[in-house]
Amino acid sequence: MVPHLTTALSGPLQELEKRLLGNATRIEQWFRSEWIEHTPPFYGSVDLRNSGFKLAPVDMNLFPGGFNNLSDDFLPLCVQAAHAAVERLCPDASRLLLIPENHTRNLFYLQNVARIASILGLTGLEVRIGSLLPDVTEPTPIELPDGSSLLLEPLVRHGNRLGLKDFDPCAVLLNNDLSAGAPALLQGLEDQWLLPPIHAGWATRRKSNHFAAYDQVAARFARLLDIDPWLVNPYFGRCGELNFHDRTGEDCLATQVDALLTMIRQKYAEYGIKETPFVVVKADAGTYGMGVMTVRDASEVVGLNRKQRNKMSVIKEGQQVSEVIIQEGVHTLETVNGGVAEPVVYMMDHYVVGGFYRVHGERGRDENLNAPGMHFEPLAFETCCNVPDCKKSTDAPPNRFYAYGVIARLALLAAAVEIEQTAPAELASA
Amino acid sequence: MVPHLTTALSGPLQELEKRLLGNATRIEQWFRSEWIEHTPPFYGSVDLRNSGFKLAPVDMNLFPGGFNNLSDDFLPLCVQAAHAAVERLCPDASRLLLIPENHTRNLFYLQNVARIASILGLTGLEVRIGSLLPDVTEPTPIELPDGSSLLLEPLVRHGNRLGLKDFDPCAVLLNNDLSAGAPALLQGLEDQWLLPPIHAGWATRRKSNHFAAYDQVAARFARLLDIDPWLVNPYFGRCGELNFHDRTGEDCLATQVDALLTMIRQKYAEYGIKETPFVVVKADAGTYGMGVMTVRDASEVVGLNRKQRNKMSVIKEGQQVSEVIIQEGVHTLETVNGGVAEPVVYMMDHYVVGGFYRVHGERGRDENLNAPGMHFEPLAFETCCNVPDCKKSTDAPPNRFYAYGVIARLALLAAAVEIEQTAPAELASA
Repeated sequence: MVPHLTTALSGPLQELEKRLLGNATRIEQWFRSEWIEHTPPFYGSVDLRNSGFKLAPVDMNLFPGGFNNLSDDFLPLCVQAAHAAVERLCPDASRLLLIPENHTRNLFYLQNVARIASILGLTGLEVRIGSLLPDVTEPTPIELPDGSSLLLEPLVRHGNRLGLKDFDPCAVLLNNDLSAGAPALLQGLEDQWLLPPIHAGWATRRKSNHFAAYDQVAARFARLLDIDPWLVNPYFGRCGELNFHDRTGEDCLATQVDALLTMIRQKYAEYGIKETPFVVVKADAGTYGMGVMTVRDASEVVGLNRKQRNKMSVIKEGQQVSEVIIQEGVHTLETVNGGVAEPVVYMMDHYVVGGFYRVHGERGRDENLNAPGMHFEPLAFETCCNVPDCKKSTDAPPNRFYAYGVIARLALLAAAVEIEQTAPAELASA
Repeated sequence: MVPHLTTALSGPLQELEKRLLGNATRIEQWFRSEWIEHTPPFYGSVDLRNSGFKLAPVDMNLFPGGFNNLSDDFLPLCVQAAHAAVERLCPDASRLLLIPENHTRNLFYLQNVARIASILGLTGLEVRIGSLLPDVTEPTPIELPDGSSLLLEPLVRHGNRLGLKDFDPCAVLLNNDLSAGAPALLQGLEDQWLLPPIHAGWATRRKSNHFAAYDQVAARFARLLDIDPWLVNPYFGRCGELNFHDRTGEDCLATQVDALLTMIRQKYAEYGIKETPFVVVKADAGTYGMGVMTVRDASEVVGLNRKQRNKMSVIKEGQQVSEVIIQEGVHTLETVNGGVAEPVVYMMDHYVVGGFYRVHGERGRDENLNAPGMHFEPLAFETCCNVPDCKKSTDAPPNRFYAYGVIARLALLAAAVEIEQTAPAELASA
């Protein structure tokens, strides 16, 4: 049942992973003190890339949509961590409203919603599902492939509170990333817990803010372990005034790409790395793997053809792209059954609760795997990320996954810092 | 690998378990509110008995000694829950001193100590082991059967702090139940966290105080579910002035036994139960299964022979027994590979983290199984206690184990209440 993991998992011990394992106690202690200062998000998932010489997050999702891809073995961990999240963020809640994405035909996604609802139900919350879809004007049951069903209900706003017709929840949990903007229904819910906060939605969130916060977190972590922060942190830059259609801002983009590639080349030379450097250009507010382009030379972003410009200019919910992040690319060394793979780690509160591999059979080691044709290998994690076994060699699966859990939690901590730093002024001073 | 579970697990749906499953959300919500009021013990284990008509705790251990009997599958849950316990009770601790029982030859027990140390190490604590044994005057390594080793070190007291020669811990965790009394070394540690508190040790703890607290908890829980509290709560009484050697106090004992048997007979008649009622007489401060006797008629406790009196009069560490609890006996319906079995549920903070069956091939359904000849079946729990699957029938293993987790947590909550109610006056008013 566990996929055969080639190359990465059978390769030589990696210096970085050895360092993480050898310092597990200090790392956990450091995390404990950081979580006293910073409130963890309710939940999140992190896409990691492991190039052998570098292990880093490339994306951090605050509205994770793949709980259905986690192995059932992870369920007890999810329930325990959800307990902790509820106790921390809304301890006296008894009813919770879950607001999903506006997909009614994506049954994979809806199974994720059902899984989240079931986990939260086991923490002692009555969970119901409210839809932002204008079409949902009455309770709408949807049959799921596993034989269960999900009931989408129309949202009802009463003054400062959001609920359903006969359901007044204490807390509202978003599994909708608000790419299309934060609807009026969700604004000013003063008497209810809204998780994550509305400014964490993609209407206002920017990847570049996240990775700026990650810079700070990675720097502190690197000092703790006396390592080069670059080993866990991809370089990035941003361009804020792009228009792919009328080709304005191409110069900014080319300059940033060139500057980043130069910095990466220097690092590769320093460490004797023979790979070809690359960067990934992404919509700064993009998600679902849309608006993503791999670039190996600055000249590639000048004079984009129509197809490339179309691909980069529109993302989820038809939003126009005018801001991009240019991120150092991290090759992925891992393959699962011959397909290039990257680990995705799931967290609730500050706990790692599971993970899976995103696998793409037709993409290269330096390409975005979050694209049509990908699939998930839910059982690839042989054991959970919080139990390293120091007696085993570093490339034993439990150990590698511990390292993944550490890096994923760095990104989670960065998200906590990012949410603090981007909070609207009235919140920040509250 | 999973033992075949006969009778109990293949039997008909039980009314009580159905009630627990059907109310899982309300139960979890109720626990959540209770844990806001009461601080959970750092860790604990509960012996349960399931007679089919009744599911109840018969013992609650605040110094659990069987972590080595838990399946490795439970490790991630243990680590996650230990994180929660540390964050709640000693959030800024970085070094922890673990004080085990004074066993140097019981390698099974020492494997438990190693397991606890390893779990706590993964929460970011530097853990070392200090021994109360006067013989341990220098660091003493002990080889364990799994090839690892454990280092016992002599305790050093500096003013108000306890530590090792070059180790000043923030917290002291007892895995020694203090049956022989609370040594001066442990008294007055004002600047350190001492877990569990010293008055939870068997020098002062009484089973009858625990079950008095359990009476209160079970009554609240029964009101929540509108059930007869007797279904989850064994009757009990106590005798406080016994001397088995000179036969004083036998009348008190006989009177209590008779009163309890009469009450049980009435309940059996009310529910149409055909079993023979029995009570268990136990040393009120006893542990390790010592000082325990099954009684089916009051006449059995009058005129005990020398062997019986010897068995009842001395318990662990040679302590004399002058106080006993008389507890309603609960038949166990469960068998594992032909041996009579009772579940033992392990918890850290307020989380269920695992369990196993205690099995005895030569004892009856109405006898104490904690006796020489017992063994443990670590894999009997097919899944963890916090994930009921409401779509499955009640006797599916995940569901039965959910019910066990609920009752075990009731006993844990009772222990929290007991620790509050028995706290010395200066603590209680602090």
